[in-house]
Amino acid sequence: MDKDRLILITNDDGIHAKGIEALVNVAKSFGNVVVVAPTEGQSGMSHAITVKTPIRVYKHGKNGNVEKFSCNGTPVDCVKMAMSKILPKEPDLILSGINHGGNSSSSVLYSGTMAAALEGCLYGIPSVGFSLLEFSKDADFSAATFFVNRIIDNILRRGLPKGVCLNVNIPYLKAEQIKGVMVCRQNHGIWREEFEHRTDPAGHDYYWLTGTFEDLEPHATDTDEWALRNQYIAITPVQFDFTAHKALHTLKQWNWNDGTTD
Amino acid sequence: MDKDRLILITNDDGIHAKGIEALVNVAKSFGNVVVVAPTEGQSGMSHAITVKTPIRVYKHGKNGNVEKFSCNGTPVDCVKMAMSKILPKEPDLILSGINHGGNSSSSVLYSGTMAAALEGCLYGIPSVGFSLLEFSKDADFSAATFFVNRIIDNILRRGLPKGVCLNVNIPYLKAEQIKGVMVCRQNHGIWREEFEHRTDPAGHDYYWLTGTFEDLEPHATDTDEWALRNQYIAITPVQFDFTAHKALHTLKQWNWNDGTTD
Repeated sequence: MDKDRLILITNDDGIHAKGIEALVNVAKSFGNVVVVAPTEGQSGMSHAITVKTPIRVYKHGKNGNVEKFSCNGTPVDCVKMAMSKILPKEPDLILSGINHGGNSSSSVLYSGTMAAALEGCLYGIPSVGFSLLEFSKDADFSAATFFVNRIIDNILRRGLPKGVCLNVNIPYLKAEQIKGVMVCRQNHGIWREEFEHRTDPAGHDYYWLTGTFEDLEPHATDTDEWALRNQYIAITPVQFDFTAHKALHTLKQWNWNDGTTD
Repeated sequence: MDKDRLILITNDDGIHAKGIEALVNVAKSFGNVVVVAPTEGQSGMSHAITVKTPIRVYKHGKNGNVEKFSCNGTPVDCVKMAMSKILPKEPDLILSGINHGGNSSSSVLYSGTMAAALEGCLYGIPSVGFSLLEFSKDADFSAATFFVNRIIDNILRRGLPKGVCLNVNIPYLKAEQIKGVMVCRQNHGIWREEFEHRTDPAGHDYYWLTGTFEDLEPHATDTDEWALRNQYIAITPVQFDFTAHKALHTLKQWNWNDGTTD
C-alpha cells in the first residue's frame, strides 16, 4: 500500500452496491481510497449532471485507509464534487464500478459507470470503469476482483495514454474459465426498444423502457462483444473527443454557403 | 415541401422552448414534422435514459404538417419513444434543438441536445443537433434559423457519412455578422466546477453546481471554440464510436497477464 497514493472510487449502482465494495477491497491495497458514490442507484444516467436541484453530500465514515461519502447526484456529479470539494488533492487514479451489468458496445453511451471514468479522464486523471456481465444485486465478484487487481497494478505501473480511459467488461465466469484480457474496439450494436405498455389505476397509459441488444457486426472478431462471447475480459480504450475525424475532410468539401435560401 | 419526407424533432429545453419552435418553423418547409420533446426542460441530461420511473406520452395536437407530442423522459427517451411507438415510419432526418446555449468543446458530453442526435445516428438516421450561444429563454433565433435552413437543405441533398451526426453551434450575432460555416473538430476544454455552498432553513448544507469553462488549447485554430470566437458557425462531425483507436496498438503491447497477483 502506497500511503501517498490517492484513489477515488465511484459507481452508478450507489454506495451500498456489492460491486463498489468489491472494488474498494481491491483498491485499498494500492493506496488511500476515498469513495464518493451516488446515495441511490443511478443506472442509465450517462454523463448527466444535476443543474436543477441542489446537491447534498453525506459522510459515511472512515475505516482504515478508506473514507466514504455519498452524493445525491449522478456519477459525474460525484466525480466533480470529489475533485472540487472533498479530496485533499488530485487523485492518482479514478475507478468506477464494479458495475452490476455489462457496458460493452453502445451501452457505453448510456452508462453512468463509464461517464464517471470519462469525466476523470477529462481532468487528466488515469480513469477506469469496471463492469461485470451480471445484473443481479447479489452477483459474485470474486473472479472479477482477481483480474481487477491485475489491471489496476498494470495501470499504476504504466500510466494511460493521454485523453484515454478504459472500459473494462468482465464476463460472469469462474476465474479459471476466463481466458485472459483482450484489448478491443467498441462494437457497433444498438438496443432495440420494446416499450412495455401498461395502464395505471386511474386509466392512464404509461410505459417502461426495455429492450434487446442487437449486434450489428456479429462477425467482427476485434470487438468487445466478440471478446466477451469468447470468455475474454474486454478492455476498450475510450476517449472524450467525439469528433468523427475521418468525416472532417468530406464535410469540408461541401459548399455550406449554398442552399435554398440563396 | 416533400410530403413523403418525415422529420423528427426533439430538444432538451422542453416542448415549450422558443428554440424548438424556431427549428419546427424551418423544418416544416422541408417535410412532415413530428415533434417528440421533453415535457419539461432536461438540460445536462446527456445520454441518460429513464429506467426507474414510468414514461408517459402526451399529445399536443396537429397543425398543418406538424404534429406534436411530449414525453416526461429525457431527450434520448424521446427519440426512442418516437422511433418505437409514435412515428408511422423511420424518419428521414432527426433534428435536435435549437438549444438555448452552446454545446461546443466538452459540453457535448453533457448535452441532451447532442445525445438525442447521437441516438438518431445510432439508428442510422441522418441527425443534427443545433445550439445557439445564448442561454436566455427569450433568445432571438432569427439569424440562427437563416443558417439552419441552409444546413438542413445541404444535408437533405447530400446525406451524412455513416455513423456521423453533426454538432452545429451558432454564435449569437446578427446574420450579417456571421462569417459563414466552419467544419471543425471538438475543442479540448473542461468545465472547472465551483459548487456554490448554501445552507437550507433546517441548517443542512447543500450545493449548486456551477462552473467556468477553460479552453485547454486556446491557440488551436481548427476547433469549434476558435470558429465561434471568430464569428463562424461551428459544425463538428460527431460519432458514437468512443473507441480511442490510436491507443489500441499501445495497449495491445502490454502484458495484461502480469501483475502483483501472479
